[in-house]
Amino acid sequence: MSAQEPDGGGAGKRRVVGDREREIYAGAIEVLLEVGYDRLTFDAVAAHVRASKATLYRKWPTKADLVVQAVEEMACPLRDSDELPDMGNLRSDLECHFCEGAENDQMPAVIAAVLPAFHRDPELTCAFNTHFIEPRRDALHTLLVRAQERGEIGSDADLVLLSQVLPAMKFAHVMDHQEPPNREFILAVLDDILMPACRATLEPATVL
Amino acid sequence: MSAQEPDGGGAGKRRVVGDREREIYAGAIEVLLEVGYDRLTFDAVAAHVRASKATLYRKWPTKADLVVQAVEEMACPLRDSDELPDMGNLRSDLECHFCEGAENDQMPAVIAAVLPAFHRDPELTCAFNTHFIEPRRDALHTLLVRAQERGEIGSDADLVLLSQVLPAMKFAHVMDHQEPPNREFILAVLDDILMPACRATLEPATVL
Repeated sequence: MSAQEPDGGGAGKRRVVGDREREIYAGAIEVLLEVGYDRLTFDAVAAHVRASKATLYRKWPTKADLVVQAVEEMACPLRDSDELPDMGNLRSDLECHFCEGAENDQMPAVIAAVLPAFHRDPELTCAFNTHFIEPRRDALHTLLVRAQERGEIGSDADLVLLSQVLPAMKFAHVMDHQEPPNREFILAVLDDILMPACRATLEPATVL
Repeated sequence: MSAQEPDGGGAGKRRVVGDREREIYAGAIEVLLEVGYDRLTFDAVAAHVRASKATLYRKWPTKADLVVQAVEEMACPLRDSDELPDMGNLRSDLECHFCEGAENDQMPAVIAAVLPAFHRDPELTCAFNTHFIEPRRDALHTLLVRAQERGEIGSDADLVLLSQVLPAMKFAHVMDHQEPPNREFILAVLDDILMPACRATLEPATVL
């Protein structure tokens, strides 16, 4: 596959695609892990991947665009809504959704390298939310809405709160152990925390 | 109150205590928020709080010691085990434990400033776990053990997993919203997630 392909524009202007695009994402992640988000520059990434800064800027207008898309590239691919598991019960859907596809081992370090900039860089926060967090949240929300329609979750349930449980427990595990949780941990959260919480939405309010 | 007090040692050697200690912790947090953990130096903190580096080193042998104790100082104070709430039921104990004492608004930024160094700095990770994470985890674990002894949680329950729910949801909220969760969020996690999960440990296994 060619490293770069013409974009049909003026001479010398090439669009970054395919293997070359993946190479640049991998290089951006390497620079990110080495210096952190704040100190990452287009100069450093360009030098690291032997590209011109102009080539990078044409595809990624901002540092936030480049980094967020690089993080997205290394994360588990996200399914379209019509490809989400739909096995007829919530427990199976969630197991399929959360246990399929191995998490990249570098992800904890990458998240830690990006996090501190969230407070200072609204552009990064916005790009990260739009490209990374919200699509994943929407996918999980879709599974919970289907379960609600099947009667597995009460009609008054707070689906937003329920949808936060597994991602929050995964994230805390990553921060705690510096590695993604294994299947056993995810199933324990599913069976011992999230499913009981979902079932409780079908019961009359319990007063202790 | 005097800014520094003699420690009974040689001339000129003063121990940092009281208001002066708190001033230095506040200064260290300011430097931390400005430059992040990696770039924080004893030189910078010493200049910021107008102390000598030797004074700092005498009390805090490492950067990790200084930062972790500064973070501890700004966090809600932790109760001794015999001062933990003991109101006869888990729900009340947890509400009291998690809702009393306002979280410092700077805490999210401080955690974000420290997190990226966790992957690179075992000394920091160890100090943070020993001084900050583990005592808080132990306190919560104590409340769950008491509930188990009262029969509110099943004898086979995974108390470690249950004890992670609220801290994980709080942490995710902080990372999401850049501010500590309010009382309403904490009570929703308690009533809609954690208490149902605790009650489920008393029921026969449910197969869906």
